[in-house]
Amino acid sequence: MTPGLPMVVPEPGLPERVTIYEVGPRDGLQNEQALVPVAVKAELVQRLVAAGLPVVEATSFVHPRWVPQLADAEELMTILGEAGRRHPVLVPNERGLDRALALGLQHVAIFGSATETFAQKNLNRTLETQLAMFEPTVRRARDAGMDVRAYVSMCFGDPWEGPVDPRQVVDVGRRLLDLGASQLSLGDTIGVGTAGQVTALVQAFRDAGVDEGRLAMHFHDTYGQALTNTHAALRAGITTFDASAGGLGGCPYAKSATGNLATEDLVWMLTGLGIEHGVDLGALVATSTWLAGELGRPSPSAVVRALA
Amino acid sequence: MTPGLPMVVPEPGLPERVTIYEVGPRDGLQNEQALVPVAVKAELVQRLVAAGLPVVEATSFVHPRWVPQLADAEELMTILGEAGRRHPVLVPNERGLDRALALGLQHVAIFGSATETFAQKNLNRTLETQLAMFEPTVRRARDAGMDVRAYVSMCFGDPWEGPVDPRQVVDVGRRLLDLGASQLSLGDTIGVGTAGQVTALVQAFRDAGVDEGRLAMHFHDTYGQALTNTHAALRAGITTFDASAGGLGGCPYAKSATGNLATEDLVWMLTGLGIEHGVDLGALVATSTWLAGELGRPSPSAVVRALA
Repeated sequence: MTPGLPMVVPEPGLPERVTIYEVGPRDGLQNEQALVPVAVKAELVQRLVAAGLPVVEATSFVHPRWVPQLADAEELMTILGEAGRRHPVLVPNERGLDRALALGLQHVAIFGSATETFAQKNLNRTLETQLAMFEPTVRRARDAGMDVRAYVSMCFGDPWEGPVDPRQVVDVGRRLLDLGASQLSLGDTIGVGTAGQVTALVQAFRDAGVDEGRLAMHFHDTYGQALTNTHAALRAGITTFDASAGGLGGCPYAKSATGNLATEDLVWMLTGLGIEHGVDLGALVATSTWLAGELGRPSPSAVVRALA
Repeated sequence: MTPGLPMVVPEPGLPERVTIYEVGPRDGLQNEQALVPVAVKAELVQRLVAAGLPVVEATSFVHPRWVPQLADAEELMTILGEAGRRHPVLVPNERGLDRALALGLQHVAIFGSATETFAQKNLNRTLETQLAMFEPTVRRARDAGMDVRAYVSMCFGDPWEGPVDPRQVVDVGRRLLDLGASQLSLGDTIGVGTAGQVTALVQAFRDAGVDEGRLAMHFHDTYGQALTNTHAALRAGITTFDASAGGLGGCPYAKSATGNLATEDLVWMLTGLGIEHGVDLGALVATSTWLAGELGRPSPSAVVRALA
């Protein structure tokens, strides 16, 4: 047991390696009330890359009126320069895509809902018009040679509708793949899901002919289940997991906590299980500790608190 | 999905029911600096019982100089009265046992170490003299018709020795069972363990002829792994889990956090998996919320924060 790292005891039947898709700079920072300087954001992205994270979603080309925190998206991507082109960015619609195209970016992500009510509450659209809106966005992105990821939110429970039928998630997911998305990120947006639901949802996709290699999982820790659900997903063959450095985006004492799974807690488990991930945990913890100082409050990540 | 409860999706191969062994009043409160009034402790125990927890460890008959917080052990057990006799209490040695015997209690627990260094640091004894000290304590308790549980600490990692060989844990555990303990509570005292270690440790006991029915798991969330390790233990056939209401005993922002697994987070997972546990989550959350008010700081449990 190296100091600061767990003992390695592999578990049979798990993947040999996984891809951690880091969402902190976008999904984490978008929930920050106080504006974070663009130089801090750029340093965050660069340090995450230096810590070995293979994919770092950098920002969102959302309208600044909706998310003032990310109004500096162009400025950030310009600072990141040539090396920054490989970072995925969120584009809510064609106007967002236009901004990504203008900067020559290579990867975009769209953000959809699995449920009718959340589509209407969050996007002010029906599920059908949501999918209709994505069609030209994805088509034009693909025509420009971009890779497109599709987030699907409320895959496990919906605050208005309650339980979400896996068949509905599969239906929305397949249509997004048919439009041209290369990967689905299945989100437990309100964090209510438990391990059996995860296994069942992966199986439902498999039954519909969608290979688990095209699925990523995006868990929130609102009810403390994020890492356990990740473990269940690993057992179901999933190899891509969204996580947020230092648990960024979750406020530990607010009911509205989005509570993203902390990348460090995920890395601790993967390391212990002997699963390759490529991340230098010490460098990552140092990054989250530095950012916590910039934000003026401690990280909610258990590993960051234990090691910092 | 009932409001405040997860959707139920069972997972094949898990136990149908588990026993939650509630340690908050003892293992949680012993870490509190400010003295908690004995009336609050009594109300806590009674509310936990009313919420459906089948076993509630009430206090420790440790010398008051070591743990001033629990100097009111006799007073607490007297308030709990006849109904309180079934609650387990910790007895560090024969003097503690004498106090439990004087009150006519029926269940005691002893607290040992799996490692040589922790035995010396925590108990000021070698492993051998630790076991020698337990011999008359357990024998006399059993002679008096008491049930004896044995905690084994540092089963997954030790802050001085690093990784702990499962064979050493099995050796210490078997000797405690041979002395007359009915159940072992295997503790990840510093919270470093990951899921593969859990599976391997249960298997090591099974290889040595110890049935998993005699094992309980006591996980700490210091590195965020407690619930995931619980899930791994469930898969390995374990059916008794220690947990602490509201995550009592863990200070979310201290490096020294003991970080007991929060009972509420465990209940959420078990409910979602369709595993019987007998606990009324709403009543439990109300209890932890009330206690947080008495202690003057929020609960670290994710479920308590989400539902309170």
